[in-house]
Amino acid sequence: MTDTPLSPTERSTVLRHSERARADRQALYDVLDAGLVCHLGFVVDGCPVVLPTLYGREGDTLYMHASSGARSSRLFAEGADVCVTVTHVDGVVYGRSVFHHSVNYRSAVVHGRARTMPSEDAKRHGMKVLAEHVAPGAWDYARRPDAKELAAVAVTALDLTESSVKVRTGPPRDRDDEVTPDMWAGVLPVSLGVGAPWPDPRVPEGVAVPEHVRARRL
Amino acid sequence: MTDTPLSPTERSTVLRHSERARADRQALYDVLDAGLVCHLGFVVDGCPVVLPTLYGREGDTLYMHASSGARSSRLFAEGADVCVTVTHVDGVVYGRSVFHHSVNYRSAVVHGRARTMPSEDAKRHGMKVLAEHVAPGAWDYARRPDAKELAAVAVTALDLTESSVKVRTGPPRDRDDEVTPDMWAGVLPVSLGVGAPWPDPRVPEGVAVPEHVRARRL
Repeated sequence: MTDTPLSPTERSTVLRHSERARADRQALYDVLDAGLVCHLGFVVDGCPVVLPTLYGREGDTLYMHASSGARSSRLFAEGADVCVTVTHVDGVVYGRSVFHHSVNYRSAVVHGRARTMPSEDAKRHGMKVLAEHVAPGAWDYARRPDAKELAAVAVTALDLTESSVKVRTGPPRDRDDEVTPDMWAGVLPVSLGVGAPWPDPRVPEGVAVPEHVRARRL
Repeated sequence: MTDTPLSPTERSTVLRHSERARADRQALYDVLDAGLVCHLGFVVDGCPVVLPTLYGREGDTLYMHASSGARSSRLFAEGADVCVTVTHVDGVVYGRSVFHHSVNYRSAVVHGRARTMPSEDAKRHGMKVLAEHVAPGAWDYARRPDAKELAAVAVTALDLTESSVKVRTGPPRDRDDEVTPDMWAGVLPVSLGVGAPWPDPRVPEGVAVPEHVRARRL
């Protein structure tokens, strides 16, 4: 599907700073695959609710999960409209004017209707995709979900059909007539990094940090 | 206001993992003040829209801005309901079971009605709060917004009255009977850091990186 360009509908058309919009599907995958949490929006009693949640991507499907008793799970079982947004901040942009201060970022916005996974097998598959996104290697290392655990979660799928991607890179957009000989302007890069893993106190001494944790980078 | 506890309404009551909820207002400030972008949710034609945007906090007010012609600005001028969420990921939690994998995080969710700043002075004030959040020191170093620039933006305020905070810390919650002598479980810390600032190519050689950029930490 990588060759299929993003085909914007009205609500997935980037209206502001359209020069930042990316039309290729790979750009969407790149932004989604680099994230740890998404922000999931839905509507309750006419009002928006935005919650951070874990997710995973496989092809053109995004998977999320929640307690099967959660309000959102009940809404999604009814096919509620959702919006899922993933954002990475890559830098703080310092302009010569306050107005041209900004951030460099990559963001993906997905609109669609939630689909609740109907069977234990479908749930298990969604959980695998999600686990391998949040903690690659976990599915093979850790104990997999059993029937009781799968019964306790609702797994939701969202098609990536209706998506948009925006990317800002580069220096501030100060006009040339704003450039002065004595002012600094530029970018302070920002990135997520990992520290040294620390064990659960219940891990016996001598148990090594497994490779999928030790070698993890973001 | 720091002494005023968060007073949950129905929609700002943490229903899931309520043991992670924080009731003190300072916890809300801490989460908001540590963020660079928020995720702003609103409703368009009955569907949720979640967009990343910059913000700043002063007391119990959050300020955001957008082009004055943006769809969101028109909605907010009508007092639309919004939900603003700020999330920090602090670690990936590796459990002995896939089910107990998680992330350590801090998140704040604010519900309310947007208020559009009506005057140039009020806009300028909101822009100052926002600039000092995104780039502390910028208001004094860079050229401040002029009347034309202020006319081009809509500045929106949101009261922090109806807010909730959730924080997960610590090791995985595997049950004791899941602990085995040969498996590792624990946390891979995650944090945002800054790199070395780089100048806009139009900055003349010899212009030093100003202190407010050079000393910036996240």
